[in-house]
Amino acid sequence: MEFSEHIKTANVEDVVLRQPLHPPSRGALCVTGHHLLFSVREEEGGSSRQVLLLLRNIDATEKSVENLSGYSGLFSNAGRGERLDICVAVCHPCCCRYCSQVLQKEMCQQHCSNSLVSHTLTLVSGSSGTITIKCKDVRVLQLDIPGMEQCLNIAHSIETLSCLDSVSEMYPFFYRPADLSLQDPWGLSSPEKHYSQMKELHDRWRLSTVNQGYSVCPTYPPAVIVPKEINDDMLLKVAKFRQRGRFPVLCYYHRKNGMVIMRSSQPLTGANRKRCREDELLLQVVIDNSDKGYIIDTRSSQQAQQARMMGGGFESKSCYTGWKRLHRQMERGKALQESLIKLVEACGDGSHNMDRWLSKLENSKWLSHVQTALATAGLLAECVERDGHSVLVHGSEGTDSTLLISTLAQLIMDPSCRTLEGFLTLLEREWVQAGHPFQQRCAHSAFSHSRLQQESPLFLLLLDCVWQLWRQFPLALGFSEALLLRLATEAYASNYGTFLCNSDQERCSLEVKEKTHCLFQALLRPKEREHYSNPLYECTELAIWPSVHPQSLQLWRGFFLRWTQQTRHLEEAQEEIRNMVIEWGKVVLS
Amino acid sequence: MEFSEHIKTANVEDVVLRQPLHPPSRGALCVTGHHLLFSVREEEGGSSRQVLLLLRNIDATEKSVENLSGYSGLFSNAGRGERLDICVAVCHPCCCRYCSQVLQKEMCQQHCSNSLVSHTLTLVSGSSGTITIKCKDVRVLQLDIPGMEQCLNIAHSIETLSCLDSVSEMYPFFYRPADLSLQDPWGLSSPEKHYSQMKELHDRWRLSTVNQGYSVCPTYPPAVIVPKEINDDMLLKVAKFRQRGRFPVLCYYHRKNGMVIMRSSQPLTGANRKRCREDELLLQVVIDNSDKGYIIDTRSSQQAQQARMMGGGFESKSCYTGWKRLHRQMERGKALQESLIKLVEACGDGSHNMDRWLSKLENSKWLSHVQTALATAGLLAECVERDGHSVLVHGSEGTDSTLLISTLAQLIMDPSCRTLEGFLTLLEREWVQAGHPFQQRCAHSAFSHSRLQQESPLFLLLLDCVWQLWRQFPLALGFSEALLLRLATEAYASNYGTFLCNSDQERCSLEVKEKTHCLFQALLRPKEREHYSNPLYECTELAIWPSVHPQSLQLWRGFFLRWTQQTRHLEEAQEEIRNMVIEWGKVVLS
Repeated sequence: MEFSEHIKTANVEDVVLRQPLHPPSRGALCVTGHHLLFSVREEEGGSSRQVLLLLRNIDATEKSVENLSGYSGLFSNAGRGERLDICVAVCHPCCCRYCSQVLQKEMCQQHCSNSLVSHTLTLVSGSSGTITIKCKDVRVLQLDIPGMEQCLNIAHSIETLSCLDSVSEMYPFFYRPADLSLQDPWGLSSPEKHYSQMKELHDRWRLSTVNQGYSVCPTYPPAVIVPKEINDDMLLKVAKFRQRGRFPVLCYYHRKNGMVIMRSSQPLTGANRKRCREDELLLQVVIDNSDKGYIIDTRSSQQAQQARMMGGGFESKSCYTGWKRLHRQMERGKALQESLIKLVEACGDGSHNMDRWLSKLENSKWLSHVQTALATAGLLAECVERDGHSVLVHGSEGTDSTLLISTLAQLIMDPSCRTLEGFLTLLEREWVQAGHPFQQRCAHSAFSHSRLQQESPLFLLLLDCVWQLWRQFPLALGFSEALLLRLATEAYASNYGTFLCNSDQERCSLEVKEKTHCLFQALLRPKEREHYSNPLYECTELAIWPSVHPQSLQLWRGFFLRWTQQTRHLEEAQEEIRNMVIEWGKVVLS
Repeated sequence: MEFSEHIKTANVEDVVLRQPLHPPSRGALCVTGHHLLFSVREEEGGSSRQVLLLLRNIDATEKSVENLSGYSGLFSNAGRGERLDICVAVCHPCCCRYCSQVLQKEMCQQHCSNSLVSHTLTLVSGSSGTITIKCKDVRVLQLDIPGMEQCLNIAHSIETLSCLDSVSEMYPFFYRPADLSLQDPWGLSSPEKHYSQMKELHDRWRLSTVNQGYSVCPTYPPAVIVPKEINDDMLLKVAKFRQRGRFPVLCYYHRKNGMVIMRSSQPLTGANRKRCREDELLLQVVIDNSDKGYIIDTRSSQQAQQARMMGGGFESKSCYTGWKRLHRQMERGKALQESLIKLVEACGDGSHNMDRWLSKLENSKWLSHVQTALATAGLLAECVERDGHSVLVHGSEGTDSTLLISTLAQLIMDPSCRTLEGFLTLLEREWVQAGHPFQQRCAHSAFSHSRLQQESPLFLLLLDCVWQLWRQFPLALGFSEALLLRLATEAYASNYGTFLCNSDQERCSLEVKEKTHCLFQALLRPKEREHYSNPLYECTELAIWPSVHPQSLQLWRGFFLRWTQQTRHLEEAQEEIRNMVIEWGKVVLS
């Protein structure tokens, strides 16, 4: 595909950019295949400042035309050309503000709920248009563009190019900065390296390459850690008994007491209560020397029962003796996506009504999801660290809430996950390699009007939970809030290949590791490492048990309000602390 | 009065103290005239730790008896002796858990809403009791005391001694620490000093001693700053026209543009629209060289109208030409007190329900009051700094919300108020000397069951608003959150005389300045100064305009949740930053 096909107007002069926390600026706008580039006019800014926005970061756009018969209206994303869909902003009087066509009362009601009314409108040249750009990192920008046709052309380019489906045409495949080479190592760790670092478990666990070529489980890496007593033939049978082939694998070994965390997908018992001896044996050998193990099912007991009707299921007490099932219902999918949409809408509410804000915050339920995630991770960590039992975690597919709580539990228990490098390695292992479908989940964020398919902000919820930990234990984590903010942006739109695709297999077939740069490696370069480190970090060997009292959890203002309120001063304070530490370090060293 | 009259049992051994964020400890309890002293048993603690609690800090107590026929019940504060009021904690089955007397259904319903049921109960010796102590600084302690009679004696002593009315018997009159002398200077500033520091206004303003001996206005200091053209005879007439004699006085001079803030009480126009030429002249001469002035009335327009029926009123447009009235309704009195009670109740709610917490937080309306206070102070500062007009502030009496917003506006505009010393001086001038009735307002805090009279947490609301400023501008204020927390505690119960009484007159007649120590002086001693300074402070000459968007304002967790959640780690981080700055300073100096 040629990007130029979608760019009718590439350059416009005299555009006004309005962005939060900045005064409006006038300059030239340029649309390329992957970016919006805005260059501030030199005479105004002194040095020519530029604003570069990845088109992929754009979640939704809105067009409106000013000074057209003295009225303004809002165009839908759908219409283009001479026939336009118009949503009249105010529904009194109940007629179109452009052509005075009287609208039916039903239509008027539709207006009030922001639906669209279609009728014909002749384009008027000489007018100007405004494009409101709502980004996936919850920033909202506005471009005032002279000339309605230019405005519509630009808007069309943005709409088309911002949601291209083809991964290999995305920007990471074109990003070639001078200080990075495609020959640089990709990624921070591998299942092989992870296994070799844990000598203590070599007598009971082995590295299996049964998934070489992704033939058994497309969403697992080629090598996984499994009990020594289970050979590859048995694994094949277990894989057939687990949804999408995600058989139980080890993800964490707790050095203090030798207990482990495993994760998988649900067993496919179905309505007929099918069994798989190999699956039962696999779990049996894990707890051989211990009294019992726990299965944390991230669905309610009722949901697990219902899943049986669809061919899924759960580990029954009678077949998996020695394992105790705990059900903790965690929201995922659509419910979580809607929660995010409501929260972001509440954060953007410009009214000065305190009650309304608090009630919208409550109504979004986002903080309840944060609470549930931290509480379930706490339960998992308690099972392992306090009670000394091994745990298997799964929900349905094992690619979402399963990863969320296994990651958080490791942060709670394991100090080596709490360094900057350790945390990135953890994310690489538990999210990228373990098959979280980033491309599906992060296709859209909180603003998109398009019908949502597989979108769900699981990774953002993880980052929010990590931020809560970070806030409750300001000395215990080696990274800064800035890292969490950076990751939240990168997951949705990135120069790097790390969060591309839905699985290792897809990344392999698209040669992502050969043709793009690795975000995690880039974040560990000296300058970045300095910026993303926590200046107050002091390693502690202790588990950090988060408080999950509602009173202890807060809105992550750094992310959700970063474009709407003045967090600049907070950043100043952080910067001040950082400088102090650096200066002090220099003085002490000299 | 002899305190010993109220102490039947002075010492009890084998008491268990349960306090938040600490494990329970066993030791000896001692009741003195002003304190509860708990000494941890030596063999347990190693070194003998002591907990000293000012009885004045106790807002409410609850007694309950354990192991009495195997049941526990809750006693009201009212009953003592053989006849006791009992509230049965659980109302199923509907009979008294002590004597099995069957209760009527109505009584049962009363239980559920925590009302009391009276019937006779014989004291049983050998049982033990628990006293729950709810402090004015929102801490909740529990004492398990062996022997029911001892428990009741202790409880009675606490109840009586914690709310003595006689000021001269309060602890500040007995507090004699080795490192302070009664000869030390009392207070940080005086009207005379304040006036002498502002040479620029000497040609238009004078220091009047019309209130010498508090004959004109008991709630003003003996000297006040008034327009030069208004002589003392005129002031006497103005005082008669203003509620409680609080005629307009200068409280702030804005050096940048020569504008001033004045404060007063409402004019006594009454239903007949009475006028006072001297009052009108006083305001007229203030804006002589400027085009107009603003009157910020902290009541709604309707409230101000209603006040006329009660003899109060407002400055009418026709009589006060050149002055424009702005009404901003601010809650005070009972509404604010109830808001605090609801908030503290919500903070203590131990349920894990996130929705319930957010809805209780909203329902308390505390954050709305914070928002209104900051918004009104912002309006005042805008009038002075941005628009260049002088402003008179008053509500009804001018001793509550008037002081709140004049203080906040000065913090917003004036960098000299933002240092540790400057802030304390501001509080001394605008709250202590200006006649905020601390004794009435802070007699009880959020837990008291007694019928509230004049209580209202205006000063706490001020500290909360200052904290919001501090959080939004972490570099601009020279003091730490710890100072705000300390002041919040001291206002309700203190070793010092600073917040005693309701006015300068009362303090004078009780010789507070001669017989007690000054808190503000104590806070400026080197060690305290270090603890209460902001290590990140960088003076800025600019006004610090707070954001009052609902999204920008937060619950002051440091105060409201300091005993219920783990803020220890946050304090650690603050301590770390402080140490770093100190160490760095040493290195740089050496």
